[in-house]
Parts: sequence; C-alpha cells; structure tokens
Amino acid sequence: MRNTYIATLVAAATASGFFMNAAQAQPALSDAQAMTADRLIDAGLEDDLAWDILESLTTEVGPRLGGSPAEARARDWGVAKLKALGFKNVRIETYEMPYWARVSESAEIISPFPQPLAVTALGRSKATPEDGVSGEVVRFPTLLALQAAPETGLEGKIVFVDEPMARTQDGSGYGTAVAKRSQAAVEAGKRGAVASLIRSAGTDSHRNPHTGGALRGGGETAVPTAALSNPDADQLARALERAKGPVTLNLNLQVETKETVVSGNVIGEIPGQTDEIIVIGGHLDSWDLGTGAIDDASGIAITTAAAKLVGDLRGKPKRTLRVVMWGAEEVGIYGGDAYAEAHKDEMDKHVLAAESDFGAGVVYRFDTRFSEEALPKAKVFEAALRRLAITPGNNMAFGGADVGATRDLGVPVVSLRQDGTDYFDLHHTPDDTLDKVDLGDLRQNVAAWAAFLYIASEMDGDFGRLPVKEDAQ
Amino acid sequence: MRNTYIATLVAAATASGFFMNAAQAQPALSDAQAMTADRLIDAGLEDDLAWDILESLTTEVGPRLGGSPAEARARDWGVAKLKALGFKNVRIETYEMPYWARVSESAEIISPFPQPLAVTALGRSKATPEDGVSGEVVRFPTLLALQAAPETGLEGKIVFVDEPMARTQDGSGYGTAVAKRSQAAVEAGKRGAVASLIRSAGTDSHRNPHTGGALRGGGETAVPTAALSNPDADQLARALERAKGPVTLNLNLQVETKETVVSGNVIGEIPGQTDEIIVIGGHLDSWDLGTGAIDDASGIAITTAAAKLVGDLRGKPKRTLRVVMWGAEEVGIYGGDAYAEAHKDEMDKHVLAAESDFGAGVVYRFDTRFSEEALPKAKVFEAALRRLAITPGNNMAFGGADVGATRDLGVPVVSLRQDGTDYFDLHHTPDDTLDKVDLGDLRQNVAAWAAFLYIASEMDGDFGRLPVKEDAQ
Repeated sequence: MRNTYIATLVAAATASGFFMNAAQAQPALSDAQAMTADRLIDAGLEDDLAWDILESLTTEVGPRLGGSPAEARARDWGVAKLKALGFKNVRIETYEMPYWARVSESAEIISPFPQPLAVTALGRSKATPEDGVSGEVVRFPTLLALQAAPETGLEGKIVFVDEPMARTQDGSGYGTAVAKRSQAAVEAGKRGAVASLIRSAGTDSHRNPHTGGALRGGGETAVPTAALSNPDADQLARALERAKGPVTLNLNLQVETKETVVSGNVIGEIPGQTDEIIVIGGHLDSWDLGTGAIDDASGIAITTAAAKLVGDLRGKPKRTLRVVMWGAEEVGIYGGDAYAEAHKDEMDKHVLAAESDFGAGVVYRFDTRFSEEALPKAKVFEAALRRLAITPGNNMAFGGADVGATRDLGVPVVSLRQDGTDYFDLHHTPDDTLDKVDLGDLRQNVAAWAAFLYIASEMDGDFGRLPVKEDAQ
Repeated sequence: MRNTYIATLVAAATASGFFMNAAQAQPALSDAQAMTADRLIDAGLEDDLAWDILESLTTEVGPRLGGSPAEARARDWGVAKLKALGFKNVRIETYEMPYWARVSESAEIISPFPQPLAVTALGRSKATPEDGVSGEVVRFPTLLALQAAPETGLEGKIVFVDEPMARTQDGSGYGTAVAKRSQAAVEAGKRGAVASLIRSAGTDSHRNPHTGGALRGGGETAVPTAALSNPDADQLARALERAKGPVTLNLNLQVETKETVVSGNVIGEIPGQTDEIIVIGGHLDSWDLGTGAIDDASGIAITTAAAKLVGDLRGKPKRTLRVVMWGAEEVGIYGGDAYAEAHKDEMDKHVLAAESDFGAGVVYRFDTRFSEEALPKAKVFEAALRRLAITPGNNMAFGGADVGATRDLGVPVVSLRQDGTDYFDLHHTPDDTLDKVDLGDLRQNVAAWAAFLYIASEMDGDFGRLPVKEDAQ
C-alpha cells in the first residue's frame, strides 16, 4: 500500500517541481519555502495582533450568544476588524436559526438542609413553571446507570447524574461528558422525572457551573435540565449521604425562545493567485456566561493573525486564504452548517479546511485527514512545525465543529491539536475570560497556524478528497 | 530587662515545680508533659473529627449569615454537636444585633460596550433605587488617589477603586484591602458620586466577587457599594481604556435590613480542676455566598477537635477549656463583643484566649501576646510545636477578631498563624467550600492546637495581663 502511493507521489512531485527528499522519498519544501515558513514562525512567536484581536472582541463585545443582539454586534466588530486589517471581500453571510436564551436560574435544597446551590440551565432546556419544580432527588453515579434504570419509578423525582469528567490533554473526557449533558434530561423524562441535574461537564472545583447544549435530537421526552458546579454536585451528594430521609430540591429555570432569528458568518479573504480556497477560522459566538476568551475568541484571534502574517508576505499566496468567523456554534453549529450549504457549489475549490476551537493552550500535535494518496504531504507540515514542539499525529483529524459539514462534503481537514489539560476548567463557564489566556501560548498558536497556512497555500497538488457523507447537504 | 524577668521566673518556676532548662534558664515541660504533648500531636495528625465537624457544618447548614435563620440553625447544630462530643455546660448565649442581607445584585456596562459584570454587594451597603443607579465610571487606581481627589467633581458619577491586593503568606495585604472596602463608598459619597465599586479584596482570578463588611464607622456619606470580581475589574479597566468616550454603568443592589434580630454564641466546656478558663474557638457564622468552609467552619472544627483530644486525656485538665462558636463575626464581630460583655465579670479567670479564623492552611508560626514577665513561657510552646514546622513568632499576636474585646479587657492571647498564601483566593466568595480544604493541613492544625491547649492548661502560673484598653467595655 505504502509503496504504491509513494511511487505515485514521486511521479506527481517530479511533475509539479515539488522537491523530494531522496532518502525518504517524501515531498518537501524548497529551501526558500522552508526559510519563509521559518520566518513566519519567528514572526508568530513575536505576534501582538492575536492578543489585540482577542482583547478587542472579549472587551468591546463581551458575551455573544448565538442569535442574540450581542452576536450581531460581534459581526459588526468582525467586519470592521477584518477591513481594518486589509482583508478583502469582507462580508456577512446570514442564515436563520431558532433562538434560546437563559433568563434566570436557581436551585435550592428545600429539606433537610435548606441552602442554595449554584446551577446553570443547559442550552435548549425547557423552562420550569414560574415557581420551579420541586421533587425528591435521586442520584445516579453515571448516565449509564440512569439508562439502565427501569422505565418507570422516577415519577415526580429530580434526577441527578453525578458523573465526573476526566482531565486529559487531548480533551477525550469530553465525549462522555457530552453524552451525560445531552441525554440526562431525555432519559429522566422517559421515566417520569420532573427535572434533571448533572454534575458540570468540567474539571475544575469552582462554583461556576458549566453550561452547554443539551437535547441534540430525540428531545421529545426531555425535562428541564441544568448543571451544578462541581462543588455543588459534591454538596448535593454529601447531603444525600448525610440525610436520614429524602432530600428535596427546587429547580427554577426561566428561558426565552424564538422560532427564528437571523445570525451570520463573517468572512474575509486574502485573495490568491488561483481560485482554490483554504478556509480557516474560529467561531464568533460564545456562551452567555463568560466573555468567550478561550471559546472561541482565541480561535478567531489565532487564525486571523496567522492569515494576516501570510498575507503580509510579498506577492499573493497561491491559494485564497479565507478566514471565517462562524456564528452560533455553541447553540447548534448553525454557522458551520450554513457555510457548507451556502458554498456547496464551490466545495471542489475548497482544498483544505481547519478551525481553531480548543482554547489557547499550545499546539502539541498536528493531525490530518487527507486522502491516502496525499498523506505523505503531512510530513512536510510536520517537519516545519517540529521546532514548535509539535509532534506528528494521525490521519483522523476532526478539523473542528464548524468545518464538520464542509468535511462531510469531501474537503480534507487538519487539526492543530492544542493542550486541553486545563481547558475544561473554564469551558462554558463565567470564568472564560481574557485573564486565563497566556500570551506566549497564544503566540505559539499563531506561529503554528501561519506556518501551516503558508505551506498549505503554496504546496503543489491538493490533499485529495474525503468520502462524501451520505446525508451531507 | 531580660535578666530581671528571667530571675523572677527562676524563682516562680522553682516555687511552682515547673522545670527549668539550666543552660537557658527557661521554663520547660516535665518529661511526662512533653510526652503527652507529643502524643496529642500524634493524635492530631491522625484526627478525623475535625473533618467530620467541618463537613457536617458546611453540608447540613451551609451558608449561615450572621443574624439569619440559617445562623440559628447553625446554633442548634453547634449545641447538638458539642453535646454529642461530651462537652459540658453546653449553651447558647444570645445577644441582639442589626441585620443586613443581600436580596439581589447586578451590574452592567450600558455603553459603549454593553455587557453584564459579576458584582456582589458589600456588607451594610445601602440599596439602590429599584432600577439601580446609572452613571459614568471614574476610575481611581487606589483608595489614596480617591482620598486625594477634590471634594467636588464626582457628582452623579460611579467611582471605581481599582486597587489590587497583594498575595502574602501572612495575609498582610488584607489591611490595605479592607481600607479600600470600607472607605470607598464613604469617600465617593463625600464627593457627590452615586455609587462606588471596588476591585475585590481578593487574590484570585475567578469571577466570584469577594464580599465583606463595608462602612465601619463614618458611613453617613456612604453610597451603595459593591465589589467586582478581579476579572471583571480588569474588564472595566480595559473598557475605560478602549472607549473613545465615557463608560456608563448601571448598578442595582437590593438589600434587606432589620433594626434588631437575635443571634448568639454557642459555648461548651471541658471543665478543669480550677476555675481558670482558657477560651478558644472559631466563628459560627459565614458570609452568605459560600458555605464558609475556610471561613470559618475550619476554625470551629480545629478548635473543637483539639479540645476534645485534650479532654479525652485521663483526668481533668487543670484549667477549664471553653470552646466558643462565636456568632455574627463577619457582619460586625457582634458575637465576640457580646461574649466579652457577658463575661466581663469573670475576665480575671480568663487566663488565655485564641481564635482560629484564617482558613485551613498549615500553622507555620506561633505568636503570643503575653505580659513581658510571662514571655519566656512562649518558649515552652515553641519547643513542643517545632516538630510541626512551626517557628517562633513575636509577642504582638492579634489573637483573632472574636477575642479582640476579651483581649482589650486584659486577657493574653496567642495566634497560631496559618499559611494564608491562598486564603484570599477564596475568602468571602461563593468558592469558600469544603473541596478547598486539605485534610492533611487540617490535621496539622488540630495537632498544633491540641498541643498548645494542653500546655496552656497545665502550665503553672499564668501569662500575665495585658493593658486594659481605655474604651473597652
């Protein structure tokens, strides 16, 4: 297998003038290109633009829930920022979406140990009646335990799924956490419960509960649902242990919904010499609780600053560098889906897509999702990124939530994998604020993205196509 | 001077049978006493009682604002706990006090960057009108800068005192912070401002603002006053820098006050062979935002568990060990003052007083406030505590807020100084919860207090008397 596609590549590379390392028979950069990539890394490591963008968005707009007036202000901010930086074809591409916003939220133990608990409504949760719902708390250590419970027996109860989240570098604990967040309300409702509470999908011990979307699909049976901060989940678990009888709790969630509001993606470009496009970006919206510094103003800042560095090189890049500030990611990936829908007729011009959406920790690994034939090209990126302590990854890159629909239409993706050890301490909480970002780490990201983007733009030949997903738009 | 009192002590010690170290001419423990102190330290380092008390109070009562129904439940809890542990003469000594409680609080930048800010009312703050007060924000880098401002010129403005707090082991940054917290509203009001905001008196970067008492004395000119979390203070400072014109803000604080409510101190004793008393304890109340784990359920737990260890020794202690769970400390030291008033006629029987009220960090230093003649006795404590890595301190011990009034009546005090490096990350915030306490650190405290208490009880002769303060009750 390997021999076959290396042989193919040798032919392709020779034809395209791309340099090959004879010993390894791999594509490689020209000396001039390698020097340019290195200069971009140097520049990225001294970059101040990303910080300025990050500070500007988080300060001047602040929280910007998908579909809200604040997100509209963020779009105006994005247009002004991209224009001021010299991007071309700056525009907003609008789409419609349903709207959900929290109005108020509270929880308190009624008996036997009356006290308030720190709680936050999960995205798309139903509201409770005006006075909340009250019921006896029934604890399940995991979502699996709830799923294994009989289909009756929780009538009138408040389900509490107390499953903890694992702290990992690669964020792999999040999958289980999302399952809990999405399914607790559905499973609780099926069994007659009046509400569900989860231990926050987060790894910190602060009294800032983690919000996040619940109820993707199959939400017909869902009851009002909210997350307790980790210390409050501890507290409720202790109360259940120390109480001699039932622990009753009142949960009050008030929300606002609208069937349709207008949101949009903000787009700017550094036009290339060809009509091929590399699309990168971050998502412009944030949850409402914090100012979305790590999620995802950092991604906006990193990708915009990196594209600007490449755009500032002499001459046009070979391919168009398109920066997208996707809207309404948190509340349902509406912007990413709308982008793919709006651009489905030019997907064959999309050579590569990637999103920065995992905070501002350093990039430690470079993953690709190229066609098998194009896979040796990953080595070219890996070689350039090695001085940033970025190691080679695998060919199963996720790419980012907002490029999911684009990827499903066959466009290859990469992931510049960031260290997420601390990411879920802050993710989706009020604590997602600028002070949590380290300038040095942010610069390492800019350096990595600039080098990646330059190489992706200049490399001869493309990265193949991925299988088109059956149900893709 | 030193020679004089050493000579006196030699005579006294010889008369009392107290052992002297010939080389240093210092009082010392007998071998049996030293062994007992050591055994108490061993027991303290394996103690589980303090954790159980701490968990019980913070879970079963939770937040317990001075004068509130929750504090009344805490008193019932205290009585039941002390009785269950075998303490004698368990009782509540009531007193009356004014009542202040927060009802709601919010702040938002109105223009040019509309967004909410995390804010909490400071204790005793006036309420704003129902819709809050709005005004242009004027920033002062320090309280001193505000105090130096002209007496007019802030009419209709919202003053923002942005002074940071220093992180120190001994908590010495708190003095400046308290000055800011107490005086900002007074100074702002004098100059015609409509409200005052401070950067939280805290050292963390989480969006949990730090409450605390404001307006001790001279509060006639005080305007409504609140603290921003540190990240929100950063945000407001940045908004002021980035705005091209004025930054306007709305602050809405609603509070409940009552002229008089009943509160109380919970008292339990381990009766001694004499009528002399050593009084120790912590404060039972907490601020309403957290569950008061470090402030001050830890102090309650440490002193109660230490007294229990000493009480469990064979035979009665020489002196009565009185554990007091003082009420309503946070909101005005009402319990500590009431204790001194109620017991002023037996102050001559009070040999020593001390409070544990600086969290659950390890004890690193032993300070005394003895009469000069009694000062050499400090060495006996210091020798016993050395294996716990506790170093000798000075003779200027504070003793604790709740023993202030007792100290002012002439009673010597000690301070088992705790490491406060992280204390002001949590102090007076929602984050003051059980998960922040380290079991090993808590046990070191119990060990230190048990050894201290035993030696203080058994030592012949007293620790002298302090000058009675002029205006003491």
